Amino acid sequence: MKNNPNSNQSQFDKKGQAWSARFSEPVSDLVKRYTASVDFDKRLAMFDIQGSLAHAQMLEAVKVISPQDRADIERGMAQIQSEIQAGTFIWLLDLEDVHLNIEKRLVELVGDAGKRLHTGRSRNDQVATDIRLWLRDQIDQLIELLKQLRRALATVALEHSSTILPGFTHMQVAQPVTFGHHLLAYAEMFGRDTQRLIDCRTRVNILPLGAAALAGTSFPIDRPLVAKLLGFDGVCLNSLDAVSDRDFAIEFVSACALIMTHISRLSEEIVIWMSPRVGFIDLADRFCTGSSIMPQKKNPDVPELARGKTGRVNGHLVALLTLMKGQPLAYNKDNQEDKEGLFDTADTVRDTLTIFADMVPGITVKADNMRAAALQGFATATDLADYLVKRGVPFRDAHEAVAHAVRECETKGCDLADLSVAELQKFHPSVQDDVHAVLTLEGSVAARNHIGGTAPEQVQRAAQTILTALS
Amino acid sequence: MKNNPNSNQSQFDKKGQAWSARFSEPVSDLVKRYTASVDFDKRLAMFDIQGSLAHAQMLEAVKVISPQDRADIERGMAQIQSEIQAGTFIWLLDLEDVHLNIEKRLVELVGDAGKRLHTGRSRNDQVATDIRLWLRDQIDQLIELLKQLRRALATVALEHSSTILPGFTHMQVAQPVTFGHHLLAYAEMFGRDTQRLIDCRTRVNILPLGAAALAGTSFPIDRPLVAKLLGFDGVCLNSLDAVSDRDFAIEFVSACALIMTHISRLSEEIVIWMSPRVGFIDLADRFCTGSSIMPQKKNPDVPELARGKTGRVNGHLVALLTLMKGQPLAYNKDNQEDKEGLFDTADTVRDTLTIFADMVPGITVKADNMRAAALQGFATATDLADYLVKRGVPFRDAHEAVAHAVRECETKGCDLADLSVAELQKFHPSVQDDVHAVLTLEGSVAARNHIGGTAPEQVQRAAQTILTALS
Amino acid sequence: MKNNPNSNQSQFDKKGQAWSARFSEPVSDLVKRYTASVDFDKRLAMFDIQGSLAHAQMLEAVKVISPQDRADIERGMAQIQSEIQAGTFIWLLDLEDVHLNIEKRLVELVGDAGKRLHTGRSRNDQVATDIRLWLRDQIDQLIELLKQLRRALATVALEHSSTILPGFTHMQVAQPVTFGHHLLAYAEMFGRDTQRLIDCRTRVNILPLGAAALAGTSFPIDRPLVAKLLGFDGVCLNSLDAVSDRDFAIEFVSACALIMTHISRLSEEIVIWMSPRVGFIDLADRFCTGSSIMPQKKNPDVPELARGKTGRVNGHLVALLTLMKGQPLAYNKDNQEDKEGLFDTADTVRDTLTIFADMVPGITVKADNMRAAALQGFATATDLADYLVKRGVPFRDAHEAVAHAVRECETKGCDLADLSVAELQKFHPSVQDDVHAVLTLEGSVAARNHIGGTAPEQVQRAAQTILTALS
Amino acid sequence: MKNNPNSNQSQFDKKGQAWSARFSEPVSDLVKRYTASVDFDKRLAMFDIQGSLAHAQMLEAVKVISPQDRADIERGMAQIQSEIQAGTFIWLLDLEDVHLNIEKRLVELVGDAGKRLHTGRSRNDQVATDIRLWLRDQIDQLIELLKQLRRALATVALEHSSTILPGFTHMQVAQPVTFGHHLLAYAEMFGRDTQRLIDCRTRVNILPLGAAALAGTSFPIDRPLVAKLLGFDGVCLNSLDAVSDRDFAIEFVSACALIMTHISRLSEEIVIWMSPRVGFIDLADRFCTGSSIMPQKKNPDVPELARGKTGRVNGHLVALLTLMKGQPLAYNKDNQEDKEGLFDTADTVRDTLTIFADMVPGITVKADNMRAAALQGFATATDLADYLVKRGVPFRDAHEAVAHAVRECETKGCDLADLSVAELQKFHPSVQDDVHAVLTLEGSVAARNHIGGTAPEQVQRAAQTILTALS
Repeated sequence: MKNNPNSNQSQFDKKGQAWSARFSEPVSDLVKRYTASVDFDKRLAMFDIQGSLAHAQMLEAVKVISPQDRADIERGMAQIQSEIQAGTFIWLLDLEDVHLNIEKRLVELVGDAGKRLHTGRSRNDQVATDIRLWLRDQIDQLIELLKQLRRALATVALEHSSTILPGFTHMQVAQPVTFGHHLLAYAEMFGRDTQRLIDCRTRVNILPLGAAALAGTSFPIDRPLVAKLLGFDGVCLNSLDAVSDRDFAIEFVSACALIMTHISRLSEEIVIWMSPRVGFIDLADRFCTGSSIMPQKKNPDVPELARGKTGRVNGHLVALLTLMKGQPLAYNKDNQEDKEGLFDTADTVRDTLTIFADMVPGITVKADNMRAAALQGFATATDLADYLVKRGVPFRDAHEAVAHAVRECETKGCDLADLSVAELQKFHPSVQDDVHAVLTLEGSVAARNHIGGTAPEQVQRAAQTILTALS
Repeated sequence: MKNNPNSNQSQFDKKGQAWSARFSEPVSDLVKRYTASVDFDKRLAMFDIQGSLAHAQMLEAVKVISPQDRADIERGMAQIQSEIQAGTFIWLLDLEDVHLNIEKRLVELVGDAGKRLHTGRSRNDQVATDIRLWLRDQIDQLIELLKQLRRALATVALEHSSTILPGFTHMQVAQPVTFGHHLLAYAEMFGRDTQRLIDCRTRVNILPLGAAALAGTSFPIDRPLVAKLLGFDGVCLNSLDAVSDRDFAIEFVSACALIMTHISRLSEEIVIWMSPRVGFIDLADRFCTGSSIMPQKKNPDVPELARGKTGRVNGHLVALLTLMKGQPLAYNKDNQEDKEGLFDTADTVRDTLTIFADMVPGITVKADNMRAAALQGFATATDLADYLVKRGVPFRDAHEAVAHAVRECETKGCDLADLSVAELQKFHPSVQDDVHAVLTLEGSVAARNHIGGTAPEQVQRAAQTILTALS
Repeated sequence: MKNNPNSNQSQFDKKGQAWSARFSEPVSDLVKRYTASVDFDKRLAMFDIQGSLAHAQMLEAVKVISPQDRADIERGMAQIQSEIQAGTFIWLLDLEDVHLNIEKRLVELVGDAGKRLHTGRSRNDQVATDIRLWLRDQIDQLIELLKQLRRALATVALEHSSTILPGFTHMQVAQPVTFGHHLLAYAEMFGRDTQRLIDCRTRVNILPLGAAALAGTSFPIDRPLVAKLLGFDGVCLNSLDAVSDRDFAIEFVSACALIMTHISRLSEEIVIWMSPRVGFIDLADRFCTGSSIMPQKKNPDVPELARGKTGRVNGHLVALLTLMKGQPLAYNKDNQEDKEGLFDTADTVRDTLTIFADMVPGITVKADNMRAAALQGFATATDLADYLVKRGVPFRDAHEAVAHAVRECETKGCDLADLSVAELQKFHPSVQDDVHAVLTLEGSVAARNHIGGTAPEQVQRAAQTILTALS
Repeated sequence: MKNNPNSNQSQFDKKGQAWSARFSEPVSDLVKRYTASVDFDKRLAMFDIQGSLAHAQMLEAVKVISPQDRADIERGMAQIQSEIQAGTFIWLLDLEDVHLNIEKRLVELVGDAGKRLHTGRSRNDQVATDIRLWLRDQIDQLIELLKQLRRALATVALEHSSTILPGFTHMQVAQPVTFGHHLLAYAEMFGRDTQRLIDCRTRVNILPLGAAALAGTSFPIDRPLVAKLLGFDGVCLNSLDAVSDRDFAIEFVSACALIMTHISRLSEEIVIWMSPRVGFIDLADRFCTGSSIMPQKKNPDVPELARGKTGRVNGHLVALLTLMKGQPLAYNKDNQEDKEGLFDTADTVRDTLTIFADMVPGITVKADNMRAAALQGFATATDLADYLVKRGVPFRDAHEAVAHAVRECETKGCDLADLSVAELQKFHPSVQDDVHAVLTLEGSVAARNHIGGTAPEQVQRAAQTILTALS
């Protein structure tokens, strides 16, 4: 396989387009900018090179290129990697995307071997491979960050397994819970998020290379070899599907939308807890900012912004679903739009998880305020009803009796615990002398001592289980 | 545990509200309608009863209720089931939701035992349980329907493993592919959709019951027993999380949005293929409608409508994500809004998959039109480039040479195969007498004979593999 | 124009389809259900009849039908209207949609005149007309409801023009504001929402009828006459556009999404204000519900549910945008999906506004709690900075000086007003004896006495202006 | 107003934060990056300066600052503008946003006058003002571009007022239409889009400045003067609303989503029309690209990408709606997320409209293919039905008779026009010798000669009307 004398090495240089011989008119600058992707897809460069090296190794193995060609390609790629890392690589909008920019430089550096690299593949399967390699890496990072955040939550939960605050439903005081229990709810959510990413990874980690433009290639390629070299778990079994679908990316963004939804809920609570009327916690100063006009302000910027960024990820999800809707097979240019939203989703979630894993341990708990709040709002009314049930009163009747008692307390401006046994007996004769024991906050939380319940014992066990699993 | 003499059996009847003793003013009719869910959640009735029966069995096992209570509850529930199935059950808006409607009737039928049923639970964990039971059932149905659709696709693919049509990219003729290969692309997509539902099911099939309102309960409940009775794979490990999160539902709708996205792509193709200028297929009349004004029309209504319904499911996904954004723990009334979109998503996907599994085998393939189309647009240009590469020309140079040849053909108004060897040699000296063999459609598809390629041999093997796996 | 002897009056009856002569196979029951719209579009019936009557009047005017035909049609339609109002009209799924159901009944009732009604029109322009008539009516209702809500807000605002609560930014105390001022912010939002609906109405209120299927008709129709009869402001100027676009509906849903966004913000605040730790307001019982397990609960169900319903409308918006994306001209069956989301949007917003207009006047203001909250959090720090600026200190320096003072107060656990003049002078020498006047809540709000400011005088004026404009 | 000797000019320099005196801990680099907006909001710089200059002029007019202060500020701002234009301005992440970056530089350049500029305003009302100024400018640009695109469409429509192609419904041949008529449908859509932007502009062009942080200011500001200086039509009437709502931005993005929806429809058609099986048009090479593997390809990249970008704008709309959902008053940090999506929306629509206005005139119409397609599919069947109606046959009977004739033609493989009068009479006795006149394409389109109809005469008139209105 010698260098061909007819070779026109400058097809990139002269026309700046890989397909130019067929065209009679250059694209305008605006069209060039509108259709080019290099500004954002150059971020895939290292994965593009990784894929090319595996492709070259395979091409040599099946004797489509010579060992010398492969050596040349590897040498050229090593040089290109250095240039990119050093920031000296020159990205040209004229060359449209990351693939052509690298290939053109490779041809400059190593001549015909570089021109042989694209044998048996197309940019359609090449970009699909790059995205999957990149996304696999991102997923692995997010899984690790979710672990760190869960570890932080479980650690603080363990510390506050007996700290009591009011559990709210409808933002009204419902029943006392422990702060540890409350935080572990988020550990559960982020645990499911982790599982979703792990499941998504199995669908991401499949090799599209070999699909070529859409139909496969006439070269005797060895796709399992390439999959093995790149660490993929399998190969895409249909070439048309391989180059055209992006469901794996949409699934990833869906999973991220749920992560951010959970983040938004935690953020909402932190913002409310920081509000002076509530005053349950304080955030470390480094997660807050002040005001340009109000000198006294300390604003929980980080959770607010994180809450806002939920919209961003939901938006990317809608963008990708809209993008794919009604697209005929196989590749259409629409799909170039898959990248920016995907990149921004990963960046947003990565930054957010990193900061939250740092922020959670920096929460200052104001246990006194929590306790004071739990003493408002008849948080142990359910315990009184349960008390009656345990003395044989059907639940619905017990519920009704306690509702009357609560109404009386509201009129009097007192708590249930402030009523005497005699007064409580007016609402139901089954009330006995031991009733006040169930009306304390400690009694209430300790009584919920089953899997998933808020009793300190359960919270400690749950937190330990998580910490052990993560260690 | 005897019937309590103080029992006020009519707390439902008199006030129409389970919480009424605390309230001084009834809700208006509009508010009642606005806040009631019984119109749509009554569809959960059978699952609600199933959950209640397991709850009662557990309550008896842990001796919170008596065997007689449980027997009464079972007798009452059997009666209620009959009434619902017979359509004689009276649903009251005043009783707000499916849970209170059933519970009230139970109390009517069996007295105090009915009032004891709600011991140790709350509507918050009850509805979460109902939804999960219902959703598990829906997922199982969808998985089965996806199998049927994949079976239909693979069957038609096997039949048309050698039928050639143009493979398109950018809606331009790219390379010849087989129709079987094209259909199998969708079999792959729906295969991944199936996997996503299976993964989602593992997160759906966890028991929230026992979380009670939000904090667990003071009764000595046995949650693993309830899980076992109801076929759940485990129990929710945090009560606050159990009653408040709906991520499992959002994950399900996400998976459905991808199913519908794939349906929309297939629909788009069917609509285009049916268009007279393309004329690749015909649909059976039963999937089409006519026009009230144009007597000649036969419209592919089903795929068009299915394509339109993609929007519906995407919309439900956004609705649910918006709903959960920023919700503090634990249960908030916002969550009542989780059901209608979820129900409609499942209905939409179920109907759509059912119809498509029937429609695909009813496609009439117009092979002549497909073939004629494949002969337009220089579909074998890539084969000519590959031919040159195999003769030592670097791919980029081969690509350039063929581009010149195509341009010449366009000027002449002929196909590449119409050029003589001598004419082809003008574009590259490596062209030899055997060149025309690679310019045929059959030669082109047969050459792509690797995993995932469009060669008939590969298509047959892939279709068989799918059919075997589904049988 | 006599009754034609060849007439086959039973083309509806025998085949249940307007187009059936061309078809060889009936649709299956599932397909029938899948593609039929009568279950939801029958709600357009009265508008469909209204449009048909105007069409008939015009057909007579241009002599396409006879006066007798028109009289027959009017007689038949009067009968049909009675039947629909009486609930005796029989809607058949077999007849697919509202249009064919009514037309078939008309033919039954009046024979050939009924068959002549569809002359010069198609269901494509007919349904577009129906939707616009219906939507115009809905918009007028919503505009009226927004007026009522704004009137309620302005009335309560006037009453509380001097009631002080803390103004929050980032949920942190920022500066004191009046409750009236706070409520008027929402009056402004709903005012813009009203303007958006008014603007949208101008694009809705254009007549599509006359576009026929897509190209217009060969009959000598008089479209301006029909427009005049139906109260439209003009006619669609392009028939292809008239039958295929739904941007007017999407614009309406967009406007509704903003209404619900504003409702969600007000709801969030009401829920927080009702929370016992904040305790700024109480809602009338009729907008709240209790708990099936916790006897003490009073939950602000209405604002919570309204907040949740924001997702629903956002979802419909996405559904409609997804629906229209990439649709080629002219009418496609996809568009049948435009109705349910549109109907549900209008219903949701109508119910929500109705309830909120009733709920706002039922708010009980707890002025003492508001005032107590405003005294926390250094709400008048900005006033101190402004005080310094008025004494010649550059704003940035004043801001810095006050920040130091606030920090000192935090350490001491006191408010700025608790510092003596001497202590304050330590932070800046420009502080003088009159400083405490600006540190009161009343002084602070009164000082913001310009258009849009929170001073009671401004709030009264703004509320009055709104009430006057609405009266 | 002299320079204050206590002045600490370096509060920006030393701490990089305007609020730092109150804080004990610096933010981490990641938090700084996460919360900073300068990377994207620096694009507002010129509008920020414009707003500041008007603010300074007003402050002088009301004697809050001296003429010398204002002169200093103007001098400094002129310098800063030069530096920004020259690219020498140094943007610091430490200074968080565009406002502090500019203010800090101003203080460097002009000392205390710079520190006085922020008197009576806050970044909250400042950024709201900047965005509105920027958005007003963007809207004006988009309105102009929509004009250019409509002019291009009307010009080509005029040229092709008699060029016949099949009008499609359901992608099936419906009735013949003229290509000019088809293009004018889009001119109508973009006309409504223009109106929506004009309406939106009235809500954008209102001045928030003067709202300060949230409550107004204690300085005697003259808001109408600032509004006049900046060309605003009015002032926001409520300070809390002014700093916190972003409905005007969401309304803009909604309007843009509809523009892109219309673009997606036109793009879909262009892509289909370019497909070789359809072959109605060709695009100029400069809007197309080729393939890296298939030498023959010419892909309509621009319309495909534009279609894909619809998703992007829909996504931004969802992001913004999600962002605002449930936000309590007044400003929350979430709102920082409003900018990137808004900026990208404007950029996307601006680029797309610019390119389309250039692309439309570059369309090559292949009239022969269009005509050939119109002769397929019984496009004049409706004309035959109308012919019968005009001879007294009720429309429904005529429709039925023609359906039988079409079915016969399908069996024979001929067109309606190929049937003899005698053959046609078999389907209905009212057919007479003149029947073939209505079965021609020209006769069909010419007959639809009413406002909005497809007759060449109407198309010419409509196109002229648009061109006149735009000139």
